Amino acid sequence: MADDKGKAIAGAAAPLVSTKAVPHPRGGWRKGVAIIDFILRLGAIGATLGAAAMMGNSEEILPFFTQFLQFHAEWNDFPMFQFFVVANAAAGGYLVLSLPLSFVCIVRPYAVGPRLLLMILDTVMTALVFAAASSAAAVVYLAHNGSQDANWIAVCNQFTGFCQATSQAVVISFVAALSFICLIIVSSLALKRM
Amino acid sequence: MADDKGKAIAGAAAPLVSTKAVPHPRGGWRKGVAIIDFILRLGAIGATLGAAAMMGNSEEILPFFTQFLQFHAEWNDFPMFQFFVVANAAAGGYLVLSLPLSFVCIVRPYAVGPRLLLMILDTVMTALVFAAASSAAAVVYLAHNGSQDANWIAVCNQFTGFCQATSQAVVISFVAALSFICLIIVSSLALKRM
Repeated sequence: MADDKGKAIAGAAAPLVSTKAVPHPRGGWRKGVAIIDFILRLGAIGATLGAAAMMGNSEEILPFFTQFLQFHAEWNDFPMFQFFVVANAAAGGYLVLSLPLSFVCIVRPYAVGPRLLLMILDTVMTALVFAAASSAAAVVYLAHNGSQDANWIAVCNQFTGFCQATSQAVVISFVAALSFICLIIVSSLALKRM
Repeated sequence: MADDKGKAIAGAAAPLVSTKAVPHPRGGWRKGVAIIDFILRLGAIGATLGAAAMMGNSEEILPFFTQFLQFHAEWNDFPMFQFFVVANAAAGGYLVLSLPLSFVCIVRPYAVGPRLLLMILDTVMTALVFAAASSAAAVVYLAHNGSQDANWIAVCNQFTGFCQATSQAVVISFVAALSFICLIIVSSLALKRM
């Protein structure tokens, strides 16, 4: 009876978010949502690992050098780029490990435990990937534009190849971060009571 | 009958995440979760608006100057700090607007619509606040430590007051970002089928 009451209240509040799908095949749309979740994870694996690999391989040695130094830019010159590589690799690793759990959610669309676990871990990883991508983006911006007020020169004038590689890695990582947001939204749809 | 099957499956998967609360007062723990949500929002409002205000007021003019320039550091010297102020103020404004909806969830603990809407918007705002805090943190780190490889000097040697204010703003913003993560987790608990 209390359950009925809950359903009635949920029904009254329903117009705020429309779900469209009428659950006539009994959990059919939930299974569809779980499959979308799985596909999103596959895409995000590629994006996070690709971003980490691209940043980890970014290095440029200029073809000229003075008596004292050779001009050499590498990703681990900046701690933000190190964090970027570690965070994206960690997120990629987590996504690979989460695939079996996501598969369980396809087979059992009504399972709450795995879905809730995935959702909480996804949230933490979203934060991690956003933090990594944003801090790297700040460094890439400064490398491109410098800062006149702080008297920082734009190093990208020399290291064009290095800057291009790091910029691309940052963009790919933001794509991964957006798929994480989609994953959370998909999970919240799958988790909700109908 | 299909609902019973769903419950049975949910029960089988339950050991993965324990909820502890036995719902004997019918929705009692859900109401508690909604109240925690409301309190977290109040705290996050203070943190986001405080961070935005602190960053927005950070400015330092050094007491000496040369013929050509006066030494002057301000938050809008860096686009990341501008983004930081805008993003934190936006998150604070969103949180204020979300309070009525959060209150609705206390009154009607079984309502799915408002809860789902809050959750999706919270996720987007989490990403925004994390991006703002991380990019500002990257600039603050560079201001403190500089970068030998890029030949960027540590401006904090001169502008100690400015650096202290911006660092504190970044820390407060990360606290706000963590409360957003808690908000998402709380919402996912409230949203799940029992």
